[in-house]
Amino acid sequence: MSNAIAYVSRDTDGLHWKKVLEDALGPLDFRTLKGGLGNTDDIEIAMAWKPDRGLLASFRNIRLIVSLGMGVDHLLTDDRLPDVPIVRIMDDGLVGQMSEYAIFWALRHHRDIDKYAELQRARTWKALDFVDTIHRRVGVLGLGVIGQDTARKFAALGFPTAGWSRTAKDLPGIETFHGQDGLAALLARSDILVNVLPLTRDTKGILDAGAFAALPKGAYLVNMARGGHVVDADLLAALDSGHLAGAALDVFNTEPLPADHPYWTHPRVHVTPHIAGATNPRTASPGIIENIRRLRAGQPLINTVDPKTGY
Amino acid sequence: MSNAIAYVSRDTDGLHWKKVLEDALGPLDFRTLKGGLGNTDDIEIAMAWKPDRGLLASFRNIRLIVSLGMGVDHLLTDDRLPDVPIVRIMDDGLVGQMSEYAIFWALRHHRDIDKYAELQRARTWKALDFVDTIHRRVGVLGLGVIGQDTARKFAALGFPTAGWSRTAKDLPGIETFHGQDGLAALLARSDILVNVLPLTRDTKGILDAGAFAALPKGAYLVNMARGGHVVDADLLAALDSGHLAGAALDVFNTEPLPADHPYWTHPRVHVTPHIAGATNPRTASPGIIENIRRLRAGQPLINTVDPKTGY
Repeated sequence: MSNAIAYVSRDTDGLHWKKVLEDALGPLDFRTLKGGLGNTDDIEIAMAWKPDRGLLASFRNIRLIVSLGMGVDHLLTDDRLPDVPIVRIMDDGLVGQMSEYAIFWALRHHRDIDKYAELQRARTWKALDFVDTIHRRVGVLGLGVIGQDTARKFAALGFPTAGWSRTAKDLPGIETFHGQDGLAALLARSDILVNVLPLTRDTKGILDAGAFAALPKGAYLVNMARGGHVVDADLLAALDSGHLAGAALDVFNTEPLPADHPYWTHPRVHVTPHIAGATNPRTASPGIIENIRRLRAGQPLINTVDPKTGY
Repeated sequence: MSNAIAYVSRDTDGLHWKKVLEDALGPLDFRTLKGGLGNTDDIEIAMAWKPDRGLLASFRNIRLIVSLGMGVDHLLTDDRLPDVPIVRIMDDGLVGQMSEYAIFWALRHHRDIDKYAELQRARTWKALDFVDTIHRRVGVLGLGVIGQDTARKFAALGFPTAGWSRTAKDLPGIETFHGQDGLAALLARSDILVNVLPLTRDTKGILDAGAFAALPKGAYLVNMARGGHVVDADLLAALDSGHLAGAALDVFNTEPLPADHPYWTHPRVHVTPHIAGATNPRTASPGIIENIRRLRAGQPLINTVDPKTGY
């Protein structure tokens, strides 16, 4: 009988997931990549993060793929993905963490904290000129669940906040832009640019020399979406020319970030190891549990992904 | 004729204030400490920050003191203060900056940013365990205008947030405590403690060994109120014992902080030079302008201070 759930990720052993799912659904045939998948003909559902190419297709009786990330680019790069529904986690805890991350780095730049740290090292008591919050414009690329939460929280802190999405959106208290012309307009008014776009064919390399040149001088970048959005050489050039004041990067074209990559040691780059938003079993599991129930009851799934748009 | 306005502060030359007041009120006889006060019999209104003891009393025709800080302890320590009304600035810009400051340091602790900085220096890609935001309890000491704004914004970020004040207050979404018993209860549940109390006879030295011992192990302190709230030796002891994880300090018993003070070089203390909330002419001036108009029209003043309670 094919009713096993396979946890296909190398990031953790997955046993915390077994517990939260069994608390809700009763005993499960729960298998993990680290513990061994056994006879993969038994697998009905795969919970996946960066699966090896072709692995999911080898599960002959698979009926559902659950993306353990809110972004699904890690699945769609597999050109042999089985033709079954894909659902993604919707995780309030992860969303809240992403907003925390963006706000933290934005405030660090906004309030000149690194300059105050230098003054502390020199034991120097000196107040610096400040930028009034109403004059520090925040721009958010991507207005899905994460981008909307992030933009709303920046606006609540008093930052003039705008957002950009592929298709037009209307959000209270947020100036919105869309399409190619809208992108140029969003960039031109963003002193702090926060990227939370999905990685798709259309957004790959979107943060290139042209985009950085369109930002105001002294702008700051927070990238917590995907490394593939950034053309690394262009970002380094924009930082080294002084056009960009700095960048907080959580995601990279190659992860883990190679030890010899210039980001590690760049004086104006803060590197974190893809931790801006961690999948949180407390908040991510209700949607997964609901989808397992629905799948087995033959009901419509929630949080489905359209492989064509990539989100 | 006694209608001069005296700007009594050594922090700035005060000429930005002359401009914003004259834009609203027309030409003024505006004098400054740095430019010279002239015949002080002419002074009707003093805008003051940390005036020398007895100076305001020497203005024989003074009718109003405007505190350039939201806290007025810098005035009330003058035991020869003239017996005229005191009003204080109410400054949305300053309030917003204070909340930014508290949120920044809280997130820095909450998200282990300093440990990630160490990992970056070691070029090490390693995700650390995280604390779910719903389990990181924030406590705010003082629920005046600043404390309420700060508490509300922490709650909006998902932190379980409580506040303490001398007298009982009721705030939506914030657990509130008051009085001496309430203080112990607030401290016992605060993983991050943010101090925004006014400095009064009752609150001087409130952050002492007993208060630090009442906090949970690993708690973090943000002090953006007054240095006089803290017993420095007790804070250093609580940090050195490992009971407190760290502290962000913007205010000190002696300012500027003396160059030989251990806070400057303590590995778990972040020092900033009293910049958490800067008085902002854009947002502070409307209330001052209104009070100048009211004083001259013989109308009741706003934002008045009760010297007995100290706020």
